[in-house]
Amino acid sequence: MAEQSKKWVLMVTAQTPTNIAVIKYWGKRDENLILAINDSISVTLDPAHLCTTTTVAVSPDFDEDRMWLNGKEISLAGGRYQNCLREIRARASDVEDEKKGIKITKNDWQNLHVHVASYNNFPTAAGLASSAAGFACLVFSLAKLMNVQEDNGRLSAIARQGSGSACRSLFGGFVKWVMGKEEDGSDSIAVPLVDEKHWDELVIIIAVVSSRQKETSSTSGMRDTVETSSLIEHRAKEVVPKRIIKMEEAIQNHDFPTFAQLTCSDSNQFHAVCMDTTPPIFYMNDTSHRQKVLMGCQLFRIIGCVEKWNRSEGTPQVAYTFDAGPNAVLIARNRKAATLMLQRLLFHFPPNSDTDLNSYVIGDKSILKDAGIQDIKDVDALPPPPEIKDKIPAQKYKGEISYFICTRPGRGPVLLTDESQALLNPETGLPKAATQMDEELLASYEGDQEVLQATTMLSSNPDPTLNLSIQQGILRYKGKAWVGKHGMLRQQLVTTIHTSGLGGHSGVWATYQRLKAIFYWPDMMEQVKVVVQECDICQRCKDE
Amino acid sequence: MAEQSKKWVLMVTAQTPTNIAVIKYWGKRDENLILAINDSISVTLDPAHLCTTTTVAVSPDFDEDRMWLNGKEISLAGGRYQNCLREIRARASDVEDEKKGIKITKNDWQNLHVHVASYNNFPTAAGLASSAAGFACLVFSLAKLMNVQEDNGRLSAIARQGSGSACRSLFGGFVKWVMGKEEDGSDSIAVPLVDEKHWDELVIIIAVVSSRQKETSSTSGMRDTVETSSLIEHRAKEVVPKRIIKMEEAIQNHDFPTFAQLTCSDSNQFHAVCMDTTPPIFYMNDTSHRQKVLMGCQLFRIIGCVEKWNRSEGTPQVAYTFDAGPNAVLIARNRKAATLMLQRLLFHFPPNSDTDLNSYVIGDKSILKDAGIQDIKDVDALPPPPEIKDKIPAQKYKGEISYFICTRPGRGPVLLTDESQALLNPETGLPKAATQMDEELLASYEGDQEVLQATTMLSSNPDPTLNLSIQQGILRYKGKAWVGKHGMLRQQLVTTIHTSGLGGHSGVWATYQRLKAIFYWPDMMEQVKVVVQECDICQRCKDE
Repeated sequence: MAEQSKKWVLMVTAQTPTNIAVIKYWGKRDENLILAINDSISVTLDPAHLCTTTTVAVSPDFDEDRMWLNGKEISLAGGRYQNCLREIRARASDVEDEKKGIKITKNDWQNLHVHVASYNNFPTAAGLASSAAGFACLVFSLAKLMNVQEDNGRLSAIARQGSGSACRSLFGGFVKWVMGKEEDGSDSIAVPLVDEKHWDELVIIIAVVSSRQKETSSTSGMRDTVETSSLIEHRAKEVVPKRIIKMEEAIQNHDFPTFAQLTCSDSNQFHAVCMDTTPPIFYMNDTSHRQKVLMGCQLFRIIGCVEKWNRSEGTPQVAYTFDAGPNAVLIARNRKAATLMLQRLLFHFPPNSDTDLNSYVIGDKSILKDAGIQDIKDVDALPPPPEIKDKIPAQKYKGEISYFICTRPGRGPVLLTDESQALLNPETGLPKAATQMDEELLASYEGDQEVLQATTMLSSNPDPTLNLSIQQGILRYKGKAWVGKHGMLRQQLVTTIHTSGLGGHSGVWATYQRLKAIFYWPDMMEQVKVVVQECDICQRCKDE
Repeated sequence: MAEQSKKWVLMVTAQTPTNIAVIKYWGKRDENLILAINDSISVTLDPAHLCTTTTVAVSPDFDEDRMWLNGKEISLAGGRYQNCLREIRARASDVEDEKKGIKITKNDWQNLHVHVASYNNFPTAAGLASSAAGFACLVFSLAKLMNVQEDNGRLSAIARQGSGSACRSLFGGFVKWVMGKEEDGSDSIAVPLVDEKHWDELVIIIAVVSSRQKETSSTSGMRDTVETSSLIEHRAKEVVPKRIIKMEEAIQNHDFPTFAQLTCSDSNQFHAVCMDTTPPIFYMNDTSHRQKVLMGCQLFRIIGCVEKWNRSEGTPQVAYTFDAGPNAVLIARNRKAATLMLQRLLFHFPPNSDTDLNSYVIGDKSILKDAGIQDIKDVDALPPPPEIKDKIPAQKYKGEISYFICTRPGRGPVLLTDESQALLNPETGLPKAATQMDEELLASYEGDQEVLQATTMLSSNPDPTLNLSIQQGILRYKGKAWVGKHGMLRQQLVTTIHTSGLGGHSGVWATYQRLKAIFYWPDMMEQVKVVVQECDICQRCKDE
């Protein structure tokens, strides 16, 4: 090992896609190793629109393994993280960086600690498979850092121990997770079926209904199903094996009708076995929040809309699938079908009047252009889909979908060589955001009476119902960092969020949503309005 | 046969209960004979609260078989009615009424026509098994009229050909429909398990969410399930047979925990196989109407509420089951549990402020008294159920349930010997209401400018979007009889509906709902308000 005296940090940054199962994984035969009771097949989503970025770093100065998820430190004590770390360390090889004068031997890895920073560019744990992309990226980046010689198939068996569906995020295109037979799970791995170019006509539209965390975790949900459903075993042993064979054929042959029929049926069956669980699991809605119930029910409407259109066309144009959360994933047979689908979706689910269309349809916006929609007036002018009979008045559900993401099948994990994309500071090995941001946050508190008041209250008589906490001087409201009044930090943050991210120059609402997911200050919305309305680029675009 | 010259009408009136399956029937092996793919078990509901009353009449003057359902003539041409009529006629015996001088031989029945009038005291086709009570009552009353010598078990095989679940309405208490093996369905009959006194502790509360007709008929729904679900066969062949054995034991032994577990699981599994259908069937909500979606979603909340309470008590207090419609049926282990359940239901689902409690909880009102609830103030004062943790604010969903019916297991079909209860006129054999009412309606049109205008418009240029029609001089709006201004008919109808029916002296809202299901006139609501507010009996009850 390099001498202790010589400080160094070695880092790797990788990006990993998320995936959506078209034949679902639901139920484990081994809870610890995460071995499934049936094979599953997924499509990898283009990481340009949905992905996890992870930077892993090693340094002799690190005292313990640490991880930050979306800027917030989380515990690595859980068995799933420990399993992944242990398995990767066991496969580590010698690493040498002559330029930096670093030399790590195979055995050194057992004693070296790592820092991990991970960022999802989409809502965490809202049924968009963030844990899939997350664990895949953790395992992939650690494997590169530690010079693990195994291929992505072998790595998938490690990622699987973090989150079952993570194994499928180690490849692009269509991927099968083979359940395997071995007790140690060594043959329970992901296998690429076809790459992302094989069926590149497909277009995927995701209707994001809610970014709240889902109520029932997949883990406890599938345990309950396996223990109590009298249908799940039949599904796993009799139904899925036949569907897997048919699905592989459909994918190979670009047979969209079969693909769509299997995808929709399997999504419905997944929710059926959830309902056959005691107590029953309803992922497509939420029993405790009125708003969520309404939102969940939108999805029944989306199913209805797709089924009606497919029937009227005589052959499926779009397949739908719902994971363990209320978001709808729609797979269109080609750009034309995607365009027509998006028109239908925007007709039934127009945005709220204060929402900018630019932040309502994000990702591959060319679909929006193809649909002939440039602004909100075009949405208002959309005619009812022809398959809706005149007798039934066409229903509109304004503002009940958060936003749509247009994407496509995408590639597997990649290394990011541009060091500026790293999430950890190359000198300290600490999250870039965390260190710099902490300083800026502390500076913003200067002379802020509200912050002073909250801090005093907290130290004298902490009341959990206030939802306030303080860590290393940083005040948090509901876990979100409180930004003080002093200086320009508030305005800087609004501007940064507004001009970057998925949408690019998003509207007031989307900017506010993204900002308030991380930060808090009183009257945040007002400031967002001002910044967005005064944005020079937005003004110019509108003028054009 | 009696001489043609001598006019006579021979009538029989019967009352038949409805039933709720606790092990569900879903899927047919023979569509025409209505043979199920699995056994089912139901509990018969007390006909005092939910039943069908049917009068059947025969007369040599009748030119054809005719039927009126809830006052409106319907066609008997359907195969289901024809099957029942044919099978009953084939079993008819000689009938003699010396007093009236009537003599009908076995063979005469083939040439005599019948009139049938039937009335449900609950919403038709809203998932409350109205067709079960209806066909059971048709077959039972026809069998009595035609002096059929077979027992109710044999009759159940005929009622089954009208509507599968109808066979179970020929007995009280708990009833099993044995699917049978014979191709001709002769062994597919209902068998009484225990009578209504065996487990008379049970109390049943029905939350009526909507009285609208359900979207997917059971017939087409179960056909789709049998054709497309890959789980239904496993359910029918492997799961249900075991559940039937356990359920019979649980009923015999008054074993409520097992009863509740099986009832809830089987209801959830029924909805699971519906969801596993292509296209998926969601009975618990409705994809086309915002209000219905909200209402359907209430039921997920009811499930949540019951599951939470049962868990907190350590042993089930209440079982829930949902038929092919969005109404919840809750079976409480005893009066105490029913009382506590009703308190919970009223806490979460209080009535709208303009609703009279007397019309919000109907049927066996003694449960309401036990719950210590006398008026709306007591509902407002209900504390949150103790199993709701303080952290989660208790949710209230005002006005999202139409009403609750408190009932219990009840007896099978009975003959009504009181001739005044007959629905057909003993002289004409025509519906009492129809003949007399038609005359009264026509009289009410005298000088009514609105009626004149509508009638003129209809005869000159019929426009279907106006929803107006005219038959034998009776004007109809959306199929409902238009009541004219002339005379006192409007007020008489309001008074009649207000002072009779399930609730007895119902409030404004319930009276209006019942009235407008059958009649129409402009500003009906205003008149209902006046009559109800001026009702002498209601005033006196309030004063006390």
